[in-house]
Amino acid sequence: MPTETFSFEHILAARERIGSRVHRTPVLTSQTLNARTGNEIFFKCENFQRGGSFKVRGGMSCLTSLSPAEQARGVVAFSSGNHAQGVAIAARDLGIKATIVMPHDAPRSKVEATAHYGAEVISYDRVREDREAIARELAETRGLVLVPPFDDFRIMAGQATAALELLEEVENLDVLLAPVGGGGLLSGCSVAAKQKNPRMHIYGVEAETANDTFLSFQKGERVTIPVPETIADGMRTQAPGELTFPVLQQHVEGILLVTEEEIRAAMRFFLYRMKILVEPTGAVATAALLAHKVPCSGKRIGIIISGGNVDADLVTTL
Amino acid sequence: MPTETFSFEHILAARERIGSRVHRTPVLTSQTLNARTGNEIFFKCENFQRGGSFKVRGGMSCLTSLSPAEQARGVVAFSSGNHAQGVAIAARDLGIKATIVMPHDAPRSKVEATAHYGAEVISYDRVREDREAIARELAETRGLVLVPPFDDFRIMAGQATAALELLEEVENLDVLLAPVGGGGLLSGCSVAAKQKNPRMHIYGVEAETANDTFLSFQKGERVTIPVPETIADGMRTQAPGELTFPVLQQHVEGILLVTEEEIRAAMRFFLYRMKILVEPTGAVATAALLAHKVPCSGKRIGIIISGGNVDADLVTTL
Repeated sequence: MPTETFSFEHILAARERIGSRVHRTPVLTSQTLNARTGNEIFFKCENFQRGGSFKVRGGMSCLTSLSPAEQARGVVAFSSGNHAQGVAIAARDLGIKATIVMPHDAPRSKVEATAHYGAEVISYDRVREDREAIARELAETRGLVLVPPFDDFRIMAGQATAALELLEEVENLDVLLAPVGGGGLLSGCSVAAKQKNPRMHIYGVEAETANDTFLSFQKGERVTIPVPETIADGMRTQAPGELTFPVLQQHVEGILLVTEEEIRAAMRFFLYRMKILVEPTGAVATAALLAHKVPCSGKRIGIIISGGNVDADLVTTL
Repeated sequence: MPTETFSFEHILAARERIGSRVHRTPVLTSQTLNARTGNEIFFKCENFQRGGSFKVRGGMSCLTSLSPAEQARGVVAFSSGNHAQGVAIAARDLGIKATIVMPHDAPRSKVEATAHYGAEVISYDRVREDREAIARELAETRGLVLVPPFDDFRIMAGQATAALELLEEVENLDVLLAPVGGGGLLSGCSVAAKQKNPRMHIYGVEAETANDTFLSFQKGERVTIPVPETIADGMRTQAPGELTFPVLQQHVEGILLVTEEEIRAAMRFFLYRMKILVEPTGAVATAALLAHKVPCSGKRIGIIISGGNVDADLVTTL
């Protein structure tokens, strides 16, 4: 564990390493939403990112930081979702062998997408086995480099480049909203935002059932909850990270909670009004806005839409 | 009927009048589609346009061309879909009273959207009544100015501004694809494209069942077909326009046909791979590409995605 603190320099270095290997995603607006909420909203659309989410930023940041010797050994990651695809894409781009540990009941589409990017997929039983242990064992026996999903400065710095681009494109934001699972995205983005404007208000948003960061903020220390039930599958982490949490505590105003139905309503708004597909986790910040849970009006608000990977099964029940 | 011919000057004048009253919509790309088709594709995303389709461009072009006296009289249009919303938005922006004649069985969402923009909606019975006759009568009795859906130089010129923006943003396009209903969009865009590059190849795409322009090209004159059955509701016109058809004949290489299932496959591609909602009419050009019906490879292809207004009923059956 490094003893240095996470800083804006990590983010600039990550951006330098990543270069043009990830998309500079578009920023969209909605006059309807502005009128309905009394604010001016700017959406950073990471659902249009390579692999369908911001995760490729962290993956690319991490893999480009490896030495040639480490790159030659190959990498391993565990994930049932977007981190798997992010690491697989980064590895293929850089000519690194990737092994991804995924639960045997992960959505077929995500397993196939990960394999499509050239990664070796290893299945495990979600109930009986510990994926982290499996990944660590693979790292040891095969000499692979472990790519953590969020609790790593290189990952946090990579995810922060989403906010960096948004802040460059949209001047004078007052507020920044982002979803919070393990806190990799939110911690990184909060440092980028505070560097730009120390008075910016930053909020994380969680599903009501996946309130580990909310509870941790209340208690002032990391709280672990049972695996939460929520359609926001990017939020099924049980606790904020050891490295991400202190950064969140320092820079984030508070954590807002939204219900499952509020998340669905936001997804419908994105789909039928804004014509974009946003995954449940990517919709939580807008869900909070639409439910009038964000304590501001007349403000310029940036929102990170974290991803757009939604199974058809869910879309047809929206 | 004006005796002058439609020219690039009409388009520049329309753009000048429209100014910043419509969105400059983003251009998206897909590495997956490029790899799959062997071309480089650039999507002009009019599904992100105000009102959810390119139609507001023509509406704005037409309404801004009216004299103050005409504007004071108010306008009338007939449409079951996007033209209604396009005219309603333009009218509201310019402070003009709009009356829209819509079939009584038009989707509730479209009637509500049109009314929401402040237009007076007049219903008619699609089976027993002639909407064009109703609109003309309203124009006479109430002194309203009729805003035609496509067969009008101001409308054609307005729609062409979509291609103009695409051509400014993406250099060296070889091919341009667009859907063709009455031909307002395609005729306008073809003139803009040929002005930029006289050797550009331009194709219109129709649903197989809505092949009025295809048949008209074959015969060398305007052919009228019965009201076609297709999910591409923007293509239920029965014949190309008197003004649009000669322009299409002059500039368009040919008309390609796609099946209903090919349209659905393209909509799924947009939704699940590119994360955007595209209406059936907006998906026909990409349907042709995915079905390998576009006779080119290794080319830079521009595609106008005409709109994104899709009812939830259809999305859930994709």
